[in-house]
Order: sequence, then C-alpha cells, then structure tokens
Amino acid sequence: MPDVIDLIRAKRDGGELTAPDIRWLISSYTAGAIADEQMSSLLMAIFFRGLDPAELQTWTDAMISSGEQLDLSGLSVPTVDKHSTGGVGDKVSLILAPLVASCGAAVPQLSGRGLGHTGGTLDKLEAITGWRAVLSNAEIMTVLASTGCVICAAGEGLAPADRRLYALRDVTGTVESIPLIASSIMSKKIAEGTGSLVLDVKVGSGAFMPDLDSARELAETMVELGNGHGVRTSALLTRMDTPLGHAVGNGVEVEESVATLAGRGPSDLVAVTLALAAEMLRLADIHADPATALAEGRALERYRAMITAQGGDPDAPLPVAKHTDVVVASADGFLRVLDARAVGVAAWRLGAGRARKEDPVSAGAGIICLAKPGDAVEAGQPLLELRTDEASRFDRAREALVSAVEIGPEPLEPVEPVIERIG
Amino acid sequence: MPDVIDLIRAKRDGGELTAPDIRWLISSYTAGAIADEQMSSLLMAIFFRGLDPAELQTWTDAMISSGEQLDLSGLSVPTVDKHSTGGVGDKVSLILAPLVASCGAAVPQLSGRGLGHTGGTLDKLEAITGWRAVLSNAEIMTVLASTGCVICAAGEGLAPADRRLYALRDVTGTVESIPLIASSIMSKKIAEGTGSLVLDVKVGSGAFMPDLDSARELAETMVELGNGHGVRTSALLTRMDTPLGHAVGNGVEVEESVATLAGRGPSDLVAVTLALAAEMLRLADIHADPATALAEGRALERYRAMITAQGGDPDAPLPVAKHTDVVVASADGFLRVLDARAVGVAAWRLGAGRARKEDPVSAGAGIICLAKPGDAVEAGQPLLELRTDEASRFDRAREALVSAVEIGPEPLEPVEPVIERIG
Repeated sequence: MPDVIDLIRAKRDGGELTAPDIRWLISSYTAGAIADEQMSSLLMAIFFRGLDPAELQTWTDAMISSGEQLDLSGLSVPTVDKHSTGGVGDKVSLILAPLVASCGAAVPQLSGRGLGHTGGTLDKLEAITGWRAVLSNAEIMTVLASTGCVICAAGEGLAPADRRLYALRDVTGTVESIPLIASSIMSKKIAEGTGSLVLDVKVGSGAFMPDLDSARELAETMVELGNGHGVRTSALLTRMDTPLGHAVGNGVEVEESVATLAGRGPSDLVAVTLALAAEMLRLADIHADPATALAEGRALERYRAMITAQGGDPDAPLPVAKHTDVVVASADGFLRVLDARAVGVAAWRLGAGRARKEDPVSAGAGIICLAKPGDAVEAGQPLLELRTDEASRFDRAREALVSAVEIGPEPLEPVEPVIERIG
Repeated sequence: MPDVIDLIRAKRDGGELTAPDIRWLISSYTAGAIADEQMSSLLMAIFFRGLDPAELQTWTDAMISSGEQLDLSGLSVPTVDKHSTGGVGDKVSLILAPLVASCGAAVPQLSGRGLGHTGGTLDKLEAITGWRAVLSNAEIMTVLASTGCVICAAGEGLAPADRRLYALRDVTGTVESIPLIASSIMSKKIAEGTGSLVLDVKVGSGAFMPDLDSARELAETMVELGNGHGVRTSALLTRMDTPLGHAVGNGVEVEESVATLAGRGPSDLVAVTLALAAEMLRLADIHADPATALAEGRALERYRAMITAQGGDPDAPLPVAKHTDVVVASADGFLRVLDARAVGVAAWRLGAGRARKEDPVSAGAGIICLAKPGDAVEAGQPLLELRTDEASRFDRAREALVSAVEIGPEPLEPVEPVIERIG
C-alpha cells in the first residue's frame, strides 16, 4: 500500500504519480481513509506542480470510478451535452437543451447551483412553480426519452470523489488549478454518460478564467480528457466581459430564455446559443439547422414539454421582486463597458445568488441591463434596473456597481461573442 | 477578522502576509479555530513561496507567544544553549552541557526524542537507571542552579503552536521547508529563555539538510531569527557524512559520552564538542578553556551531578543488548565511506529508534563502528558490531547497510569536522 506522505512529497518535489498511486489516493480519500489535511496539502502541491496528461487522465478516471455512471445507451438518438464554466446572465442551457433536442439529439443536462457571482441553471428553473430539479435516474431516462432533453441536478451517486474534493478545495485555496478544475468538470460529465460534449469556456471579467491563455489551456485540457475517455468533446471560447443578454437573476433569466425560444432573443445570446447548438449537432453527426428550429417554435415546444415533464407549469407567472431601483447614465455618449463581474456581484447582493451552499435564493431578484455595450446613451437615461425583495439590499448592490459602467464619446467596434473553437 | 481562505490564496499567489494576519493564523490554529486542512494547504504554499524575513520573525514570534516562556533571569551566570539539527551518533549534548557548565555558564538544554534515523538526547539518557526526562519548571531551575546544566524534555507549555504545527507538517509532507524548520526550532529555543544559543547545523548524508547550500541557508535564517529576538545566536556547520564517534544507539552513546568526559573520546567527537563549547563560551562572554575543563575532569563531575540531580544513578551499569553480530570488511584497503544515514537507519531497525512517536526504544540496541573512514582495514576484519534484543531484526538492519561501506586502495585526506561558522 502506498504511503500518502511519500506521494505528497513526490508530487511536491516535481515527481510523477503512478496510475496505481492515483487510483489509491482517490479511492482512499473518497472512503475517508486519507485525512483532509493530507489531501489538501497534496492539492496545493498539484496547484504548483500540475498534473501531466497521463496523471490527469488517471485522476479523472478514478473520480469517475468512485461512483455510478448513467447508461444512456437505451436511447434511440445520439446524446450530446453542453457545459459552461459559468458566467453572468448565462441562461444558454435553458434555450440550448430544448433547441438541440428539437433537432434530433438527446440532451442530458445535469447541472449545478450558483455559488458566488455566477448563477446556477437549477436556481433559475426553480423560479417556475412546481418544477423539480431532483430526479431519480429512472425519471431522468423517462423525461429524456419523452422530450429529448432534461435539466436536473447531478445525483449524489455521480463522481462522489468530486463532491468531497470540491468541498475541500473550496475551503483550502486550491480551486484555481487547471487540472483540478478540468477533472472536476469532466468526471461528472463523463459519468453522466453523454456521447458528445461541447464546453463553453467563458473568458473575461465575469468568468473564472480571466485571460484568454488560461481559458484556452483549460479548454484544451478538458477536450483532451473527454476524447481520452471516449466522449467526443470540443470547446468554444466565448466572451464574458459583459452579461449575456439583458437579464441577470433567476426568474428574469427564465423570462428572457422563453422570449428567446419565442424568437425575440437578444442578439449576443442568440449568437452564442446557435454557435453552441451547431457545434453540438456537428459532434452528434446530426445535420439540422438550429436557427430554423428556433424560428419555427419547435425549441419552445420542447422546452414546455420538458418543464411540464419535471412538474413545472410553463404558463405560471414568474415571481416578481417587490422593489426596483435604477442606475442611470452619468453622461451622453456610448456605453463602452458594462462589467460582467460587477453586475453579477450586484445581482448576487440583491438576492439572486447565495453566500453559502445552504442559503436560499430569491426568484425575483436580479438586474435588467437596459443598455448594452455599444449602445448610444444620454445622461440620465436608465442603464440598469435593480430588483430585490429587500430594499435594504440596494446600497451594497450599488456599491458593487460603482465602477461597472464606462461611457465614452466614441462608438464601440462590435465584437463576435465566440472567440474560437478548440477540438 | 481575516478570512483564512484569502490568506492561503494570497500566500499561494506570492503575496506577503501582514503581521496581524500571521498572529491571527497562529493563534487561531493553536486554539483549534482553523481547520487542519486549511493550515496544511497554507504550509504547502509556504513550502513553495517561502516566508520573507519580516514574515518569518512574526511567524516565530507568534509561535513563542502561543505559550509560556521560561524566566532564567534569576540565575547568577550567563545562560547559553546548543541545538543540533540532528545526526547519527550525535551525543554531543551529553558532553557539552556539563562541559560548558564547568566553565561557568548555565546550560538549559531542553531536548527532544528521536524520530527516524537520528537519535534523541532524551532517549539516550533514559538508558540510565532512574534518570527522569520530564521536570517541572521549578525542578529545571533547581537543577540548573545547583549543577549549572540540565537536560530535560521541553514542557508542554513551551510554544504549543509548534507542537500542533509540527505534528501536522509530519503527516502532510511539509517538513522540509527552511522557514518552517527555522521557526519550529527557534520558537522553542527562544521560549526556553536562554541568553545565547549556538546552532550545530549538520551537513551530509546523515543530516536533514543534505547539501551545504541549504544547510547554510537554514543556519543563516536561524541566526537572524535568534538575534532578532534578542538571543545572541551563531551557528557551526559540521559534517555528518559518517557517524560522530563510534557508538550509535542509546546506552552505547551514553557509554561513549562518559568515556569522552573522562578524556578518552574519539577525536572527531572531541573536536566538534570543543568547537561548540568554545563558541558557546564566546557568545556568553566567558573566558575559559573547555579543553582544560575536559582534561581535568571537571566536566565529568558536572555530568555526574546533573544525572544524580535528575534521579539517575551515574554508576548503574548500562543495559546490554542480548544479541550481537558483525559486518566485516570485504577487501583490504582503506575505509573510504561509512555512510551516516545507512548506519542510522540500521541502528533504528535494530531497535534504537522508533517508527511512531508512541513506540518505546531499546536502551541496549545500536551499532559500534569499529573502524572509521580513513582507517586501514583488512578483508574479514569486523567493521561494525550490531546489537539488538531481537535477533530477527538483524536481517533488515543488514539490508540498510548494503551500500554503507566503501573500501578503496587509496588513503583518505583527513577532513575537519567543522566546516564553517555563521554569525
């Protein structure tokens, strides 16, 4: 049996961990046989030394093997999923899953909740009366077979090693490591059983990867991991300097998603969604035009069927926050910056996000971006509408927004939301 | 109140910790308010990023402040202590404390037990019938005032932060960090209340610092820490490529120490001891010749008084191991290498050392080096005598010795045991 202290020291000193060592580490830690203080010191050594491709494949594989794997082979159509590294106003999943399903794929979208300044897909959909995030494996299969898509919580049985490791990384300053991020994301996605996977790696102020180089490295690492495990994987790097679309929050993002499914979506959101849909269909070898599916209302139909199949009422009115306030333009000119992170933090403080895992979120709280970068604005014109159930939250939300807006005399060169494709 | 995760991330990313942050970290950890997994990840970040001189002074100071400090100011003579970073056959303390005391200083030698391949001073003296390692603070003062020296266990009250941190480092692969080693050693020595301190930093295969550069860096770091805390501190770098003297073990080292005090010591042991004694007396501003004190038997007198004052019988026969075996020379020539680490590990396996803190040690087990590097040897001549209470231990001890000995045709250039002085 390996000695955990020897393995920590080996990694610390730049050595390689063997495959049996890595399998032993992950299974022993998941079983509670390696102490948290030993694993956290190993994780910090990995932060500094990294994991080479062979180590990372084994590490991820061991995390997958720590739990059950969904078997989607009974479905009659190809399966394809999308994962986003998280952004502000990123409601793409709500539109994309039914859209790609309407083109003939099955989309098993196992999702998480929001933590910090980025929202979580499950939190958003829970704004819908009756909608259930937690499904049994049998229910997942039923919804998927009947509607072509499902958005639900990843079960406790999938990659339990990741659950333990992530909780540890969260409190020990070892989150920001590319191999650890990549293995965390990919272990769950691979265990979920999808045949193909498109990664939406966000870049910019509102993303976890602030610069293009590290986003590219993360994307390449995950693409290699996915393909190495038999999942056809590619990635799009997309911009996250400003919120995607206009709405940031839970209920407000559901509303904007439904509007987008009904053909009235903001151009940046539509562009990212269609690019991801096209990439998913390419990987799944399905020849279909997602733009047409969206225009003809087939995606909206699938969305309504999926919500209904998970106990939700797609026609129920969405919760409305009790109080609103606005942030206005301080000058005439063009909106040059509307900072994603600042808007995300402000929405969080208004109640849309949670400080601790146990906290509830407000369904009605959030921010509506009334103007987007590039728009001409006049002094005094409302730029942001803040919504909350507790008026006392406005002050700290406004604090977060102090440097969020930049107005200048020059118009902005338009930028493409998709930066590049990897894989 | 600082956030521990922010502090871990700051250190991890190469930032500096402020003095209040460091004080908060050490006091919160000692009080159990910071989790082991957070402290170990911080320690690993410190392994990679280091602590700058200001951080290290505060870190050490906070460790000292975590407990009580001995007050030796009531003594009528200057106090001076020695600390060795640990070696094989390093019985210097047993001779040095009474020797320096006999020259007019008071030597408060608070010591530890052996772990791994190096022996511990307390384990050695416990081979003496009746001798007590654990004394109250009042007893320490009494023995010190009456005999001029005391060798005993550092009380639980001294630098409790170090006790917790060391136990954590031991199981998390974070022992080998120069600032962490330096702060661990110096916090205890400064809390002990000595006025001056000489550090014996061992260099070579049997030492924890295998190369001269890192030994020098450790020495300089500790000298700066001591002087920064008002303790006159200097260091000698001494060789630890081969065991010091002939005896390696517990009772056998007591026997060799007594022989040395009686004027019959091996030349390397005498040289190191006299060099350290001279350095201690220099720092304590005492003009006396330790060689004369040794030759005239005054040091032996002090030794006997100290052992007696701590309940020991200096005339009691030392325990003798039940079984002996020998390793013989494989060729004619000159003994060129007798590897300190290998001999240390073999003695440990014979029962002289412990695998875990709770284990007992054997008083009789150990190794007698019948030849030293430089000696002419003949094939078949006994080089090492192995002693143990359990004959089954010989095999693994011999394994450790497989590459310990090198015999060549050329004689060896003699080397000085003291390499250099720092401070």
